[in-house]
Amino acid sequence: MHTLDDSVEVVEFTPTPEQYAWTFGGVAPVATVRPGTALKLWSDDAFCGRLRSVTDLPGASLQMPYVNPQTGPFFVEGAEPGDTLVLHVVDLEPARDWGASALIPFFGGLTSTDRTATLQDPLPERTWIYHLDSARGTIGVQLGETTLELPVEPMLGTVGVAPAAGEVRSSLVPDTFGGNMDTPELKPGTTVYLRVNVEGALFSLGDGHYRQGEGESCGTAVEGAMNSLVLVDLLKTPGPAWPRLESDTHWTVVGSSRPLEDAWRAGQVDAVGWIRELTGLDVLDAYQVLSQISEVPLANAVDVNYSVATKLPKRLLPTRRPAYDGIHDRLRALVR
Amino acid sequence: MHTLDDSVEVVEFTPTPEQYAWTFGGVAPVATVRPGTALKLWSDDAFCGRLRSVTDLPGASLQMPYVNPQTGPFFVEGAEPGDTLVLHVVDLEPARDWGASALIPFFGGLTSTDRTATLQDPLPERTWIYHLDSARGTIGVQLGETTLELPVEPMLGTVGVAPAAGEVRSSLVPDTFGGNMDTPELKPGTTVYLRVNVEGALFSLGDGHYRQGEGESCGTAVEGAMNSLVLVDLLKTPGPAWPRLESDTHWTVVGSSRPLEDAWRAGQVDAVGWIRELTGLDVLDAYQVLSQISEVPLANAVDVNYSVATKLPKRLLPTRRPAYDGIHDRLRALVR
Amino acid sequence: MHTLDDSVEVVEFTPTPEQYAWTFGGVAPVATVRPGTALKLWSDDAFCGRLRSVTDLPGASLQMPYVNPQTGPFFVEGAEPGDTLVLHVVDLEPARDWGASALIPFFGGLTSTDRTATLQDPLPERTWIYHLDSARGTIGVQLGETTLELPVEPMLGTVGVAPAAGEVRSSLVPDTFGGNMDTPELKPGTTVYLRVNVEGALFSLGDGHYRQGEGESCGTAVEGAMNSLVLVDLLKTPGPAWPRLESDTHWTVVGSSRPLEDAWRAGQVDAVGWIRELTGLDVLDAYQVLSQISEVPLANAVDVNYSVATKLPKRLLPTRRPAYDGIHDRLRALVR
Amino acid sequence: MHTLDDSVEVVEFTPTPEQYAWTFGGVAPVATVRPGTALKLWSDDAFCGRLRSVTDLPGASLQMPYVNPQTGPFFVEGAEPGDTLVLHVVDLEPARDWGASALIPFFGGLTSTDRTATLQDPLPERTWIYHLDSARGTIGVQLGETTLELPVEPMLGTVGVAPAAGEVRSSLVPDTFGGNMDTPELKPGTTVYLRVNVEGALFSLGDGHYRQGEGESCGTAVEGAMNSLVLVDLLKTPGPAWPRLESDTHWTVVGSSRPLEDAWRAGQVDAVGWIRELTGLDVLDAYQVLSQISEVPLANAVDVNYSVATKLPKRLLPTRRPAYDGIHDRLRALVR
Repeated sequence: MHTLDDSVEVVEFTPTPEQYAWTFGGVAPVATVRPGTALKLWSDDAFCGRLRSVTDLPGASLQMPYVNPQTGPFFVEGAEPGDTLVLHVVDLEPARDWGASALIPFFGGLTSTDRTATLQDPLPERTWIYHLDSARGTIGVQLGETTLELPVEPMLGTVGVAPAAGEVRSSLVPDTFGGNMDTPELKPGTTVYLRVNVEGALFSLGDGHYRQGEGESCGTAVEGAMNSLVLVDLLKTPGPAWPRLESDTHWTVVGSSRPLEDAWRAGQVDAVGWIRELTGLDVLDAYQVLSQISEVPLANAVDVNYSVATKLPKRLLPTRRPAYDGIHDRLRALVR
Repeated sequence: MHTLDDSVEVVEFTPTPEQYAWTFGGVAPVATVRPGTALKLWSDDAFCGRLRSVTDLPGASLQMPYVNPQTGPFFVEGAEPGDTLVLHVVDLEPARDWGASALIPFFGGLTSTDRTATLQDPLPERTWIYHLDSARGTIGVQLGETTLELPVEPMLGTVGVAPAAGEVRSSLVPDTFGGNMDTPELKPGTTVYLRVNVEGALFSLGDGHYRQGEGESCGTAVEGAMNSLVLVDLLKTPGPAWPRLESDTHWTVVGSSRPLEDAWRAGQVDAVGWIRELTGLDVLDAYQVLSQISEVPLANAVDVNYSVATKLPKRLLPTRRPAYDGIHDRLRALVR
Repeated sequence: MHTLDDSVEVVEFTPTPEQYAWTFGGVAPVATVRPGTALKLWSDDAFCGRLRSVTDLPGASLQMPYVNPQTGPFFVEGAEPGDTLVLHVVDLEPARDWGASALIPFFGGLTSTDRTATLQDPLPERTWIYHLDSARGTIGVQLGETTLELPVEPMLGTVGVAPAAGEVRSSLVPDTFGGNMDTPELKPGTTVYLRVNVEGALFSLGDGHYRQGEGESCGTAVEGAMNSLVLVDLLKTPGPAWPRLESDTHWTVVGSSRPLEDAWRAGQVDAVGWIRELTGLDVLDAYQVLSQISEVPLANAVDVNYSVATKLPKRLLPTRRPAYDGIHDRLRALVR
Repeated sequence: MHTLDDSVEVVEFTPTPEQYAWTFGGVAPVATVRPGTALKLWSDDAFCGRLRSVTDLPGASLQMPYVNPQTGPFFVEGAEPGDTLVLHVVDLEPARDWGASALIPFFGGLTSTDRTATLQDPLPERTWIYHLDSARGTIGVQLGETTLELPVEPMLGTVGVAPAAGEVRSSLVPDTFGGNMDTPELKPGTTVYLRVNVEGALFSLGDGHYRQGEGESCGTAVEGAMNSLVLVDLLKTPGPAWPRLESDTHWTVVGSSRPLEDAWRAGQVDAVGWIRELTGLDVLDAYQVLSQISEVPLANAVDVNYSVATKLPKRLLPTRRPAYDGIHDRLRALVR
């Protein structure tokens, strides 16, 4: 795991099961953090650790709606509605030597659901247990006669703040407040920008994935308990309409809605705005640049809202100012 | 206004502005009601009465997100999660002699929105004031040189209970818990069935419309303060997956989701289930009957979820048992 | 069946199976008609009459893609691209004493399909045979122990012209050229306005339904061979962007697209334009009127494009000129 | 440009403007090719070369629907319905030293369109001219004060065969037959597999892009005339339901439909089938693998159907047989 500059205070927190948060908003903070602090957080997997063998099937083992537990929320000192909450993901490390994936009846992308409702029978339930090989950096799973071994690529399915307008949303929901975006872009080295909606921002995170394909087709990734090291900061400048991410190589906006084109449109329009902020181009020229440079991987097409990432490669975009006053680079400089 | 059998207790409630509820869930009850009681409720219009002339434009006059105020919530004695809350709309009467409609920037069906986002300019704002002629039963509005006079057909845009899973949703949202369905089917003579999600159900209502087209194209109906007379009852039998309505002529399910086909699918699949309950047909025969008899008017294509009504004409459906143990007829019998 | 004024020439045409048209466009005309002529046409049912008993299942009996045969196309003398083809449906009469409906694997609204693709098994196939009782005006079908009897309400699933841009579309497709709209609004007494895309318009019709619910949920109506009496006329004025219908009570636009909200949006925007033509209102006032008066029944949510009807009640719309120069009334006057 | 093994016959073809094909299907072949032949083809840009300066705006310069001209179609000897047409893109080279992009009114992803119709004004028209710097491998464009220089990454927007069921589709349409998929995956080194629908397959290609972002946000890429070197082959084994691509690193399926999730679903379900063919896994295990490994970049969200690529990284998928009998590697071996 990466370490941090000695100047950074690191606060550790591991929730008890009673402290798991099931919603964004509507939950009292577990702790208060000062901007500039690092949090070292443990989060349980989306199944609350209940799927431990291939015979643990979701229907019998899960206790809906108690899935996707969040670690938090944290009250950020000084955060006020409209501000920009800054979370830099320093490191993500699997906290168990196994992860689980599962087919849940009427959930996922290639089955009918409660909304895309049909009269067909559900797909059968099935659970897969992946075993971590830390030395090789892989997770392995048995598929009939076939052994599949895949690189570990840890990410967080869920990072979010309390929603606006007094709403409380399930931790299964992605929207403007972040939440269950399930984007593989949310990996170590990434800075997340979220608009603050309530005093203290009240952010939480969870839903660690040891690996996930773009789209999260079957509805579940390789779900695993995770140790997250996150730098928390705050800018008193206006937060973005949609969650924005920054890595060393890309600026990214994650839009979430249904149908999928609306998730895309929302993120793209915000990306046009971001291009304008970064470059000073007019709106049509920014739209033109977007059209020729954006990389657009699906995040999820299975959650309450679908999510799409619009990525702008830094090497292709001529900028005249850094994003968010250069805070990404400043936070990166604290990481050893 | 209709009157009720003397055996029925009638409780009146008019909220002060401080008592307006802006969400489903997350609000303490304003009163407790026993099943069998009638409520006589006043509700403000969706604009909180702030649009009173054509020069009151939404941008300057409305204070987002404080729109669509609900009257309630009411704690129904004995209501437990899974039960069926029964609300019979005895009467709806305009509580003012004028109503308002308006174009709100980036809101409505024939404009880009925050989700169906584009780079185009918004449509101009405009407010329309309709004047009620009680004697003629009409509302009139001036459109340039043209005077338009339309029949008053009062309905409630919003009726709902507290959501499941600890969620709190804006009063602008329609979903499984009811809410902002904006269906013209929700008119006097209609019984609403909602599944209870929390102790006491915590239902509220509001968003009176003196008239609305199917789809609520521009995002606002002829919005007006309303006096509602509603019989409240409770069945200790399982509540429906989606809001169900019963009138003297139709059984109706209202599905809400995005895209619009998913709102339709969800309501249709529930309607197949209802046909089966009423007729004993197998699932494919019920699907066949649905296919040949359903009337499917749009409710709204503008809200956070879109809503579609699937209506089953009673005269065409051979039933072997009444819906919900015949409670619609029993409640109707209390109305003079 | 209604008769026509003696001044009207009536041309009869019944295609041989070899003359069935399977596409809009790409087919040589079967006949040329002069504007002002009436056509008395026989059309086979969508299954080509191959489903005659409940043991005739689609998989074994149908020969894809040879379904939904059209009668036509007809070359209309003088019709040029941009003109308005006018078709007044005088009468529709069942041409057989039975009709059929069926579940086709991976086709319909409440099943996954080739596009809304899932990994689930298809629903079982099933065929229903309805028997016509002309005296009672009903069709009856056996559903397990239950006998269902429904009013006959004949309509045409399909009316269209050759598409623009040199395209040839399957008779299963609804779009700007009309086609397989599957709207119950297309019934006797209705005038259809279609924009002409090619010399002669090359219109055809078929897909008679003895009855259909709004949405055509299972993908098939009560499909039946039909005798259609249609008055053909032509206006040298610009044809509409989307199919428009006129009855004695409504002006209607049928939009077709996916997702369903886009079918709705397209038809609604054209309806705003039509309101403006009829009333002289400005665009925002026309949008307001649409919002308060439109009736919006689903047509189909199962075809290649989904279709939605936007209906404007004539009694509610203050007009300053008749639609299409009053041709609907003139054609109605020819009917006895 | 790459060269080919001497054993390969190379046929050159440059269409005259009169030979441009505007549709898939409905056009007589320009030539017959034997499987095993290479074609060296010139294709005009999507604007037919009419946008040559920033003052050439689409409205005045383009002649709808004559855009996106195709080179072809070619009749492949021996190709019969159901077969697999194999096209290996050896090389793509800009055929001009400039390319163009443009905003076309009511076309593109971040504007309302004829389907996602609104009452708003269109975005302004604008044309951008990019200049090719072959030495640097870049294209440059002036955006106000800013000069933007981007790497040339040539691709073909359009490759397709004649559709099934006698349809003829505009060259602007992507669907099961390929067509206007606008996916950056269609680049040199890629083998395309398409199911043959008619005798001779009748494939054509065009719509060269010197570069395109994923999604083709504004509706147009850097459109440019292109020299394409393509190996043509044929397998008498069943062709895929949706266009499949193979590169040295990925197997890819391109689904096209609306809404965007249906484009995704269709391609994903086909990808599950392909995983099963390649690995022998059962359907649920294949679904699981897909969920954890697929890369899912948008192709376009602007065309008649939207397109999404589902990419399977070869390095992650344990296969027991090569795709399509190893033809990709055999064709690659012919390239020097």
